[in-house]
Amino acid sequence: MCSHSTQPFGDAIWILSFQNNWQKIIQKLMQFFLIMSPYLFCSSLDLLPALSGEESTKCFFQELVNILLNYVSASFRRNSKVLDFHHPHQLKEGLEGFRLELPDQPENLEQLLVDCRDTLKYGIKTGHPRFFNQLSSGLDVIGLAGEWLTSTANTNMFTYEVSPVFILMEEVLLRKMQEIVGWSEEMGDGIFCPGGTISNLYSVHLARYYFFPEVKTKGMTDLPRLTLFTSAHSHYSVKKSAAVLGIGSENVVVVKCDDRGRMIPAELEYSIITAKDKGCVPIYVNATAGTTVYGAFDPIRVIADICERHRLWLHVDAPVPLTLEIEWTLNAWSVTWNPHKMMGAPLQCSAILVKKKGLLQECNQLCAEYLFQTDKHYDTSYDTGDKTIQCGRHVDVFKLWLMWKAKGLEGFGSQVNKCLENAEYLFNKIKQRPDFELVFNSKPEHSNVCFWYIPPSLRNMPPGPERNRRLHEVAPKIKAQMMENGMTMIGYQPLGDKVNFFRCVISNPATQTEDVDFLLEEIARIGQDIKLQLTETN
Amino acid sequence: MCSHSTQPFGDAIWILSFQNNWQKIIQKLMQFFLIMSPYLFCSSLDLLPALSGEESTKCFFQELVNILLNYVSASFRRNSKVLDFHHPHQLKEGLEGFRLELPDQPENLEQLLVDCRDTLKYGIKTGHPRFFNQLSSGLDVIGLAGEWLTSTANTNMFTYEVSPVFILMEEVLLRKMQEIVGWSEEMGDGIFCPGGTISNLYSVHLARYYFFPEVKTKGMTDLPRLTLFTSAHSHYSVKKSAAVLGIGSENVVVVKCDDRGRMIPAELEYSIITAKDKGCVPIYVNATAGTTVYGAFDPIRVIADICERHRLWLHVDAPVPLTLEIEWTLNAWSVTWNPHKMMGAPLQCSAILVKKKGLLQECNQLCAEYLFQTDKHYDTSYDTGDKTIQCGRHVDVFKLWLMWKAKGLEGFGSQVNKCLENAEYLFNKIKQRPDFELVFNSKPEHSNVCFWYIPPSLRNMPPGPERNRRLHEVAPKIKAQMMENGMTMIGYQPLGDKVNFFRCVISNPATQTEDVDFLLEEIARIGQDIKLQLTETN
Repeated sequence: MCSHSTQPFGDAIWILSFQNNWQKIIQKLMQFFLIMSPYLFCSSLDLLPALSGEESTKCFFQELVNILLNYVSASFRRNSKVLDFHHPHQLKEGLEGFRLELPDQPENLEQLLVDCRDTLKYGIKTGHPRFFNQLSSGLDVIGLAGEWLTSTANTNMFTYEVSPVFILMEEVLLRKMQEIVGWSEEMGDGIFCPGGTISNLYSVHLARYYFFPEVKTKGMTDLPRLTLFTSAHSHYSVKKSAAVLGIGSENVVVVKCDDRGRMIPAELEYSIITAKDKGCVPIYVNATAGTTVYGAFDPIRVIADICERHRLWLHVDAPVPLTLEIEWTLNAWSVTWNPHKMMGAPLQCSAILVKKKGLLQECNQLCAEYLFQTDKHYDTSYDTGDKTIQCGRHVDVFKLWLMWKAKGLEGFGSQVNKCLENAEYLFNKIKQRPDFELVFNSKPEHSNVCFWYIPPSLRNMPPGPERNRRLHEVAPKIKAQMMENGMTMIGYQPLGDKVNFFRCVISNPATQTEDVDFLLEEIARIGQDIKLQLTETN
Repeated sequence: MCSHSTQPFGDAIWILSFQNNWQKIIQKLMQFFLIMSPYLFCSSLDLLPALSGEESTKCFFQELVNILLNYVSASFRRNSKVLDFHHPHQLKEGLEGFRLELPDQPENLEQLLVDCRDTLKYGIKTGHPRFFNQLSSGLDVIGLAGEWLTSTANTNMFTYEVSPVFILMEEVLLRKMQEIVGWSEEMGDGIFCPGGTISNLYSVHLARYYFFPEVKTKGMTDLPRLTLFTSAHSHYSVKKSAAVLGIGSENVVVVKCDDRGRMIPAELEYSIITAKDKGCVPIYVNATAGTTVYGAFDPIRVIADICERHRLWLHVDAPVPLTLEIEWTLNAWSVTWNPHKMMGAPLQCSAILVKKKGLLQECNQLCAEYLFQTDKHYDTSYDTGDKTIQCGRHVDVFKLWLMWKAKGLEGFGSQVNKCLENAEYLFNKIKQRPDFELVFNSKPEHSNVCFWYIPPSLRNMPPGPERNRRLHEVAPKIKAQMMENGMTMIGYQPLGDKVNFFRCVISNPATQTEDVDFLLEEIARIGQDIKLQLTETN
């Protein structure tokens, strides 16, 4: 049996990067000592539910927690790497003994702990203050605590009988969120979903059911051609939803945007009328509050008027309604809210809010008797699983609930504001620098800042296809080198007629202005070097 | 700042059940001391990423881990309760200070820890050896360790660049699973999904796309009426998928089953021909290996022949293909495999396996440029996110990977076999007892055992509507009392012409024969008392 409860060599050894030989020797020595560890003789069969497995289980978790907390600490340290990049084939070959293949025979606990360390070592520190790659970044330690508890409770959200506390927490959270979007107690329903795309899918699914309830049983075959509207800058999930739901991605009309990435309302109305003229039936408009790339806000008031005029379902895709004007959501029929974005909840945490009470239930319920018995001894309106399309549902609410307790609404507000301030700082910095160019000149409305790095060889080049061709190569090349260096990370993409540019999204409360400075310096430093390659290709 | 690192009073106090007054007094005293705890003066702002927040964060997590590990230990103790039942209104009123409402102002860390304890206290111990309520039960501590790491890594499965290790682990797991279902390396694709219902939805979605690829862009409007086939005993997710995908739940033909809950192949073929005669287009048959309630296995060989004859997509809904004959999956076009069921992976863990390579990608890809850039410096075929309907995707693979390392394939096999043995034990016990009656007399093929408890007043009553009416009330009444007692938990439901009966599903490796005995004794004990009420209603 396992009996040791302290770490044999302390944690420090695990954060050595082993780049030099002498470090490798130390590593090998440590590995030798590790082989002597009592865990070598223990397997998972010695842990609970084994008889007298309690102590071993605690020991094992203590070791694991040390590994995890050291990783957490390292995630926040600026001198630690964001990533230690390796190509797929390298990782598959088994780096320094880290084998991904699955055995037929069990491995011992020591090996499992080593695997845990390696898994973290070769992963990405998404909580690092210099990780700017995604809108979901940061590592909220209270949210993390919430996730640990959630997985320990290991239950399912389909019925009150197996998730009494979590089902009620979901109700409390949804009510609070509905309050924030401006809906009265009589209005409002909702559900937490596995990600924002699924939340958006719910909105289209509900809109279709609202206008054509027979679709649930009869399907789309006898229905007219339904049409959805969303802006050219909106998230691709509206098209994906149309493809999945059997509406068809081509029946999503992509409405033109202005230079800033905002839907042009006149274009929307024109598209609606054109669709009707063609015999199609418009049912749904998606308006975005903070688009994926530009962080743009569609002109909601005018869009809402158009929707009312044409009696269309107005969905608002709003990752963070916290800082929105109430006009954004007050007249929406549904709202997607993703607390796993700027509110910093661990992945995943997304909710679809639906204004019309009862619609979710009507649209989705199938009353499976093995789960949703109506002769239970408690109020079965709390068996919310029949509102969903998923049946079994992961508990995504507890982490958010605990974070809300820890921060209060005010705390969330100042967290979001800090990200917006950092975005403005970045915007101003770029404006001042000759080696960077903004994709659009207006101040960021959200935490997105889009920009090009201009290598010296392009700085005096006149605009045109040749400059664009070269500029298009800059961001991927910088990003490749940046990932090899591993000290920061940012995304890029082309959009419309704009060639590859960087998009910085700031959503990590750990990020400070010094990290923003670092990002720009790192891009410029790498960018200097890639200028030669560009010249050579000339 | 927080400075204490040990628990002030030890853990023992938290498992007291406070049923008597003197215990309440102790509790109050302890609460008083807790108020003196240094955490009272700490908030989440003192934790990371705060400067010098490392120590406080470790302290906070140490306290949390004590709470969680004590809960884990208690989950496996037979003398601890499975649940401490309260009605929704009771929990909402705030039991013993446990408030669900969300504050505007932050609360201190001590309160958060108390909330964590309360959340667990009023929840359900799904890992308890006497929790028989759901097919997903048990608390695999290695799986739990995997979940803790997953949430600490807090990343998203859409691209290799943010999930290098997890994306490769998914590939390794899927390949292994494909090997087990008998598919060669050239065949086979797949993806992990948020639950078995979504996996089944993928299968229908793919079948539709395979036969009518234009559906992705054009939708269902110009398509003929598609028809799906599934047995009367299959999971409701096939109907749900039809409703969501725009096929319509009425276009799912529910094929009759024999007494044992197995699809009758002749009925299937007859239904297919009838559908064709009506001008519908059959595309898909779902065969179940272990139905939800009876645990029945559809006769796969004959069904596969029928599918081949009519050129239909054969989907196999097989929670645990591990113990299946290869004929089950060899000819399937897709397979749903739920490791969160009998393999004991924490929730959620479900995969859809698809035989035809590339189909998932073709069916779902939209090539969003902000995520799936093709000019990245690594092999972008590992950016698997475009294969999915979800975009962002929770990491569900690591826990399974770690469990596989810990147990090996053999370990999983013996775990499943143990559950099957316990099910057979239960079946034999019931057969011997005069106060229980089996719903079907044949041996369990899976871990499900379905039975009635027959109260004394019904034992000599002749079969007929009156006996059925009364018997229908028995299970809900026993379950209600059982939940109030909190010592065990089992599900019930009616099915077809069978009135409410208990369904025991054994999937918890912690369950021993003594727990099976306990379940029957508890039902019989409670059942004795409810007989009076039944007599009164006479």
